[in-house]
Amino acid sequence: MNVLIVGANGQIGQHLVDELKNEGKHKPIALVRKEEQVEKFKEKGVEARLGDLEGTVTEIKESMHDVDAVVFAAGSGGSTGDDKTLLIDLDGAVKVIEATKASGIDRFIMISAFGADDRDRWSEDLKPYYVAKHFADMWLMDSSLNYTIVRPGMLENKESIGKVLVKDAITDTEVFSIPRIDVAKVIVSALDNEKTYHKFFDLVTGDDSIKNALNKL
Amino acid sequence: MNVLIVGANGQIGQHLVDELKNEGKHKPIALVRKEEQVEKFKEKGVEARLGDLEGTVTEIKESMHDVDAVVFAAGSGGSTGDDKTLLIDLDGAVKVIEATKASGIDRFIMISAFGADDRDRWSEDLKPYYVAKHFADMWLMDSSLNYTIVRPGMLENKESIGKVLVKDAITDTEVFSIPRIDVAKVIVSALDNEKTYHKFFDLVTGDDSIKNALNKL
Repeated sequence: MNVLIVGANGQIGQHLVDELKNEGKHKPIALVRKEEQVEKFKEKGVEARLGDLEGTVTEIKESMHDVDAVVFAAGSGGSTGDDKTLLIDLDGAVKVIEATKASGIDRFIMISAFGADDRDRWSEDLKPYYVAKHFADMWLMDSSLNYTIVRPGMLENKESIGKVLVKDAITDTEVFSIPRIDVAKVIVSALDNEKTYHKFFDLVTGDDSIKNALNKL
Repeated sequence: MNVLIVGANGQIGQHLVDELKNEGKHKPIALVRKEEQVEKFKEKGVEARLGDLEGTVTEIKESMHDVDAVVFAAGSGGSTGDDKTLLIDLDGAVKVIEATKASGIDRFIMISAFGADDRDRWSEDLKPYYVAKHFADMWLMDSSLNYTIVRPGMLENKESIGKVLVKDAITDTEVFSIPRIDVAKVIVSALDNEKTYHKFFDLVTGDDSIKNALNKL
């Protein structure tokens, strides 16, 4: 499959591109916002396309030719205001979902937030972000796309551990974190694993291999 | 009908309470956030209840006993940040919709924003607000409630004109404004007018009487 990574220049996005390249089964296509980012990926031998989540659905759709699966790894990040939370994490995500449908692409993996489906689990200071992620997820689940919604715990820039816990709602574990590279590995493994189709799950470091954990879904 | 006005202390909310009282057909119940606001309405002979849109669905539901219709007239307003846009205009509205459903109430009128259903009509500086209103509206339309979504143009604090233009999408008129009191009058008139059920429309000052305008829907 040709896999479009929306937000490829982000921290998880970059791992995703690398993991897909290393695995060799699918071809990553990086969707990025700036011309210099396109050049950066091209130098690594990765196809890259320009796209702006604040653009129109039609404009986003133009970056989706010859794409078989879309991974939404974009995010407004912690350094921007809640205006961007609304425009990128919510409306940007929904526009990507709409462009995916309009392109006739079926497979969609969303990187969401730990516990985003349950208001009782939203931390007070991140509530606005959770609202945005929650509604983007709901939109995706309602979209007829073949979705997988991955809700990782606290993201860390550590080396891969490669062992995970994957469950609808993780509330009773000792580890609530996961290296960003392992989130990328889970997504690569999930891409064509039917056990992950039309599913959402929380994700943290655990005891199972990624393959075993996903096969239990 | 007993009509719960969510956001009764707001500018349109206060007109709504007064218009419902004057008309005498339905009983307004004011939902407000502060105890002093409850007292203010009680002094006017209007039943008032405490409710916080940042509370849980269960808490909001507690204010909905003996209610036959809900009007969402709340808004975070221009003086707060986009965190409140996410928490009140989007998630607050959706929690009220969920509480309405959970209470077995069927009729719901939403005060939305001019052109909220069309991204091409969102003004640049109000885009985050439009995102919130758009998704709250979509949620309502998907909710199985008997909804009417009213999308007024620029709101003015003028005396009633009492003449309106009501249409799916108003893009070709000379007047793009409407007095807040006329928005309230339209909602009062729409409450049990079947022509407005399961409909959304833009609303500005125009040439028709409110009754005639709504009957043309």
